Amino acid sequence: MKNNIDYSLYLVTDREVIGNRNIISCVEEALIGGVTIVQIREKNTSTKNFYNIAIKIKEVTDKYKVPLIINDRLDIALAINADGLHVGQSDMPTEVVRQLLGPDKILGVSAATMEEALKAQRDGADYIGVGAVFPTSNKNDARIVSLDLLRNIKKEVKIPVVAIGGINQRNIVKAMETGVDGVAVISAILSKENIADAARNLKKKWQPYHL
Amino acid sequence: MKNNIDYSLYLVTDREVIGNRNIISCVEEALIGGVTIVQIREKNTSTKNFYNIAIKIKEVTDKYKVPLIINDRLDIALAINADGLHVGQSDMPTEVVRQLLGPDKILGVSAATMEEALKAQRDGADYIGVGAVFPTSNKNDARIVSLDLLRNIKKEVKIPVVAIGGINQRNIVKAMETGVDGVAVISAILSKENIADAARNLKKKWQPYHL
Ligand code: NI
Repeated sequence: MKNNIDYSLYLVTDREVIGNRNIISCVEEALIGGVTIVQIREKNTSTKNFYNIAIKIKEVTDKYKVPLIINDRLDIALAINADGLHVGQSDMPTEVVRQLLGPDKILGVSAATMEEALKAQRDGADYIGVGAVFPTSNKNDARIVSLDLLRNIKKEVKIPVVAIGGINQRNIVKAMETGVDGVAVISAILSKENIADAARNLKKKWQPYHL
Repeated sequence: MKNNIDYSLYLVTDREVIGNRNIISCVEEALIGGVTIVQIREKNTSTKNFYNIAIKIKEVTDKYKVPLIINDRLDIALAINADGLHVGQSDMPTEVVRQLLGPDKILGVSAATMEEALKAQRDGADYIGVGAVFPTSNKNDARIVSLDLLRNIKKEVKIPVVAIGGINQRNIVKAMETGVDGVAVISAILSKENIADAARNLKKKWQPYHL
């Protein structure tokens, strides 16, 4: 599973943007629309609730044979046997997480500078998420990464690079032109009325750039 | 380590009650005063910060040869090789946690009813924390457990029972008279100016009840 991961259309969840819809159904619609990997991000909820949501989403991602990544919480990743974990700069240190997660799980690390990107690679990351490439309201603490820096990071690191932050239908081409392996999207899919179509349309824009 | 744990004076941390003092020093003072086991409870902080605090407290509890328990977060417990984990009713299910934690680590479970207490025992808990036995401002969602129910739970379950919730110098004897194996304390130690003395004075009150 771990090799040849398709990072091209990377969905990150956020229950705050889906209104009163069910997150499990929303993720399934996004899978129908063609997202290639899913990350569950839950902040400010109980461990029990996170665990229950993650177990249900895992059933759906397994059905569509798409890898499921857990944001921040190694305990949840282990408990539901997720395909991987994604950590940010305010989460557990990458090398500690890699040791607990084992060599076979996907480990992603957020980076906003060249230094963070190279350190993540050194410390055992399988891919890095670089952003925010465009201004975003999803993550209050997001630092902005220029498209030039994104391009340079992609040139320097050997592991896959996923661009994240404010990516939508209008700017996705700019992000992809930097040569990244994928783009991570939240609102541009999950806030839409027709989630499957939103994913499909992003995927269409992305096709010409896919090697 | 796991057998013959001394639960008698069980310190639960809360950085909100220590003012501008350092949590590591406060825990060390409590250990000097005689607390027999320490649980780190952190809510609303980053994983990285929780991890950093826990690593430093582990050095101190190791120095005093006192077990260190992590509240809720199995990831932190595994990462710092804590002596155990304590889960509440809104955390990960007990049997899931036991499997990930392994048989050798201490697993504590919060219970506020006889049913929860018996289920915790069945699901693999090593001890239960029962409360809140007195009204408390530390945990907003705390349900009240009468001293009669506490006494009955202690009679019914075979694993150690620790009373928690609003226990202080004035009411500690009432809690101990129920036959519990220990009392858990937050503010009655950590909010005091002289933390070591506060722990010592609680321990003195507790001596006549110690088997
Ligand atoms: Ni003893």
